[in-house]
Amino acid sequence: MLDATLTLQLRQIVGEKFYRDDPEALVAHSYDGTPMLQSLPDGVIYPENTRQVADIMKALAAYRVPVVSRGSGTNLCGGTVPVQGGVVMVMHRMNRIMEVDLENLTATVQPGIITADFAVHIESLGLFYPPDPSSMKISTIGGNIAECSGGLRGLKYGTTKDYVIGLEAVLANGEIIRTGGKLMKDVAGYDLTKLLVGSEGTLAIITEATLKLVPPPASKKTMLAMFKDLYGAARTVSRIIEMRIIPATLEFMDNATIRVVDDFAKLDLPLDMKAILLIEQDGDPDTVERDIERIREICELERADRIVVAETREQAERLLTARRSAFTALARLRPTTILEDATVPRSRIADMVLRINEIARKYKVSIATFGHAGDGNLHPTATTDARDHEEIHRVEQAFEEIFEAAISLGGTITGEHGVGLVKAPFLEWKIGTAGMEVMHGIKRAFDPHNLLNPGKIFAKETRKRVVIDRGH
Amino acid sequence: MLDATLTLQLRQIVGEKFYRDDPEALVAHSYDGTPMLQSLPDGVIYPENTRQVADIMKALAAYRVPVVSRGSGTNLCGGTVPVQGGVVMVMHRMNRIMEVDLENLTATVQPGIITADFAVHIESLGLFYPPDPSSMKISTIGGNIAECSGGLRGLKYGTTKDYVIGLEAVLANGEIIRTGGKLMKDVAGYDLTKLLVGSEGTLAIITEATLKLVPPPASKKTMLAMFKDLYGAARTVSRIIEMRIIPATLEFMDNATIRVVDDFAKLDLPLDMKAILLIEQDGDPDTVERDIERIREICELERADRIVVAETREQAERLLTARRSAFTALARLRPTTILEDATVPRSRIADMVLRINEIARKYKVSIATFGHAGDGNLHPTATTDARDHEEIHRVEQAFEEIFEAAISLGGTITGEHGVGLVKAPFLEWKIGTAGMEVMHGIKRAFDPHNLLNPGKIFAKETRKRVVIDRGH
Repeated sequence: MLDATLTLQLRQIVGEKFYRDDPEALVAHSYDGTPMLQSLPDGVIYPENTRQVADIMKALAAYRVPVVSRGSGTNLCGGTVPVQGGVVMVMHRMNRIMEVDLENLTATVQPGIITADFAVHIESLGLFYPPDPSSMKISTIGGNIAECSGGLRGLKYGTTKDYVIGLEAVLANGEIIRTGGKLMKDVAGYDLTKLLVGSEGTLAIITEATLKLVPPPASKKTMLAMFKDLYGAARTVSRIIEMRIIPATLEFMDNATIRVVDDFAKLDLPLDMKAILLIEQDGDPDTVERDIERIREICELERADRIVVAETREQAERLLTARRSAFTALARLRPTTILEDATVPRSRIADMVLRINEIARKYKVSIATFGHAGDGNLHPTATTDARDHEEIHRVEQAFEEIFEAAISLGGTITGEHGVGLVKAPFLEWKIGTAGMEVMHGIKRAFDPHNLLNPGKIFAKETRKRVVIDRGH
Repeated sequence: MLDATLTLQLRQIVGEKFYRDDPEALVAHSYDGTPMLQSLPDGVIYPENTRQVADIMKALAAYRVPVVSRGSGTNLCGGTVPVQGGVVMVMHRMNRIMEVDLENLTATVQPGIITADFAVHIESLGLFYPPDPSSMKISTIGGNIAECSGGLRGLKYGTTKDYVIGLEAVLANGEIIRTGGKLMKDVAGYDLTKLLVGSEGTLAIITEATLKLVPPPASKKTMLAMFKDLYGAARTVSRIIEMRIIPATLEFMDNATIRVVDDFAKLDLPLDMKAILLIEQDGDPDTVERDIERIREICELERADRIVVAETREQAERLLTARRSAFTALARLRPTTILEDATVPRSRIADMVLRINEIARKYKVSIATFGHAGDGNLHPTATTDARDHEEIHRVEQAFEEIFEAAISLGGTITGEHGVGLVKAPFLEWKIGTAGMEVMHGIKRAFDPHNLLNPGKIFAKETRKRVVIDRGH
C-alpha cells in the first residue's frame, strides 16, 4: 500500500480516473507476456504527457517508490512484471505521432503508439519503418525501444536501435533530458540515445522518440527452401551471405517446428525435412530477381529437397504463414510455452541447433527451434506445463545449458528479447564480472535509489555455471 | 616527472625502448591535429598487446597518473592533447588484423591499424568497410572508434558506430572487458559497445574491435551540380531525399570554398556559383543509372546552372578532387586553419550557411563552409593566424555563435569530430544540465579517479551563451 498523501498527489497529477489501485487494475498489471511470473503492483498510473511523467517521478522519488513503465507488456523476459511492487506506469495514453518530417525523413512519436499502427501510417506516406517484431500488432514503440526489439527484417535493416536517433526521457529524479535529434550524425558526448535503447526501463522513462525512416523497397520476393540435412540448410545461410547477398529475411524452422506448424496451418509441408528456410529479398525488381535466382542456385548446390518461389503476393503470404504461425502453433500443444532467444554467430547455427536438440533429449523436454537464421538469432521454444514443477525444473536446467552453449559458441543469452527478470541470473556469463560492475555503475549514475524497474537486468545472484556435457 | 619506481615498472612491462621520456618523444606527443593546442606529457608508452595495456593501467592507477591513449592524433577537437600531463599511450604497435571472417562478414582488428590499410585489405577480399573519414590514410581504426568518425559515405552507410559490433577494452583499473561479438544482435544488458564508440578515450582503452563488413556496391557514378542560388542547392539536397533517393555521397561547397579550391586545383570551376553539390550513387548499375538520372532532373528543376556527370572513373576522380582538396586548399591561405563541425537537420542547411556567413561578417573573419550536406554536417572553416590574438579572439567568438546557431536550428555542436577539449565548454548547450550530470555519472562509473583522458568532454566551466544577433 502506498502512502495516502502520495496517492493523493498522484491523483492530482493525472486526474482521478487515471490513477487506479482497485484489484482489477492491479491484477491486470501484475504480469506480462512472460509465462509463470506474477507480482502485484500497489498502483497503476496513466500519464497523458511528459510534464505529468516528470511530476509523477518527482513524487515517487520523494517517497522512494519503484516504478515500472510499460506499453502492452508483450515482452518475453519478465521485463515489466513489478517484482518489487510500486507503481506501474502505462504509456498507452501517450500514443500520438507528433510529426512526420518528409524533408529529414524522421518521425517523432510518443512511446504509447502501437508499432503496427505507426508502421502503417508511415507506409501510407510512401515511407518505411523497418523494425518488425512479431508482437508489432500489439506492442508499442516505447516497449520496442526499451527492449531494442528485432524482427524478421533485422539481417538487412537492423533492429530498433538503428532507427532511434533522438529521445526525450524523464530521469528517476523527474528531470527531463533530450538526446540526439533529427540528426544523422551527433557525437556531442556519450551516446545516451543508444544507451537508453534496450535499457529496459531501468535508466529513464522514454516520453518521446525521433525515429529514422527510409525509402521503401520497390519490390519483394519470397521463397521457401526445404532440407533433409540440417547442415545443408545452415551452410546455405552462410553461403548466401558469403556470396555477398544480404536478404531482407532469412528465417529458419527445425523439424519439430515444421511438424507442429503443418498440423496447425495445414500447409502440406513435407514432414521429413530437417529444416526449412524462409527467404525474402526486397529492393529494385531486377536486383530482387537476380538475388532470388542466385539464392535458388545456392540452395540447389546445398541439396535442398524442395524450393518454392512465390509467384504472387498471395502465394508469398502463404509461405510466410509457415514461419509466422510457429509460435501460435507451438503454444497450443501444451499449457505453457517458453520461448527463448539464444543467439550465435550465424556460422554456428547448425552447431547450436544440434546442441539444443542434445540438451532437450538429455533433460527429456520438448523443444522446437525456429528463428532468424541470418542473424544467428534462434528461438528454442519449450512446450511444457507450469503446474508440473518437476518438468519445469528440467526445462529450466535445459535452458541454462542452452545459454551456456550459446556463449561457448561465441554467442549471447539474448538477441532481441532483453534480459529482464528471466535472464538476469545469466548476464554475468556473457559480460563478465568487470562488465557487470560497469553496468551497475551506469545504473547508479541514472538511478541512485534503484527506483526504475528494480530487479531487472541485475540479479541478486548470478547462476552457477552448469558443467556442459558435450553429449556424443 | 613520474615517480622513478613507476617508470621502472612501465619499462619492465613494455621493454626498455618502448617507454620514452626524452624531450623528442614528449614534444612529438604534446599536440595533435588541432591548431593552437599543446601540452607536454611526462612519458610516452607503446604497448604491444592487451596484457601490457592492462598491466600499464594497473601501474598508472596505483600512482593515479593520467593516460591519453591515441593513434595518429588526426582529430580536430584537441582530443589527444595530454592537458594534464601523465602518459601518452600510442597504439601503433597494436596494428594487426586478427581475423577476417568471411562466413560472418566480420573483421577483428587491433586499434592501431591505419584505416585505409584496413579498408584496402578488406576490398582485396571482395568486401567493403564503408566509414571513410578524410583522415583515413593516416588515422587509425582505434582513433576512428574513439571519435566515432564519419566521412563522405555517412548518409547512406552510416558512421563508424554502425560498424563496431564488439570490443575488447581495458578499464581504468586494468580489468579487461569484452562487449558484443560476431553477433548481428545482442541485447544482453546495456549497450557498452555503442557507449564506448565516441567516448574519446575517457571511459576505457580499446584494445580490439570486431567490425561488421558489407558487400561492396557493384558500380558507382559521380556528378557535380552548380547553383547560383544557395537555397536552390539546399532544396536540391532535401528534394533528393524526399524523392526517396539516398545517395552514397551528397557533399556541399560554398562560394568561398569554390574560389579557393579552383585556385588551388585549377579545376576551371565557375567562380560565380553560390554552391556546388558533389553527388555519388552506388549500387547495381541499373539503380545507379536511374538514381543519377532522377537526381539530374531534380537539379534542373531547382535551376542548377551546370551539371556534370562523370563518364569515366578518371573524370569522377577529377570531380571528387574538388571536394577532397577543400581543406588543403583553405589551409594554404593563412597560417592557421580552424575547421569546425556544426551539424543541423538537413532541411536547415541553407539557413545554417547563411547564418555562418552573417556571423563571419559580424566578426570580420574569413570563414568558408563545405561539408556533408546529406547529413546536415557542415565544416565552417576559418582561415586565420594564431599569432594574431585579437583576430583569434574574434574567430572564437564567431564559432561560439555558430554553435549557438546550430543548436537553435535543432542541430548539434559536433557531427563527427568529437567534443575533446575544444567543444567541452559548449557541450551543456546541447545536452542540458541534467544530461551533463548523467554523463558525469557514466564517467565516474568507468573511471572514478578521472585518469582516462582527463579534461576532455567535461569542461571546468560551461561557456556563457552568447546573445544571438539575428542579423537582418
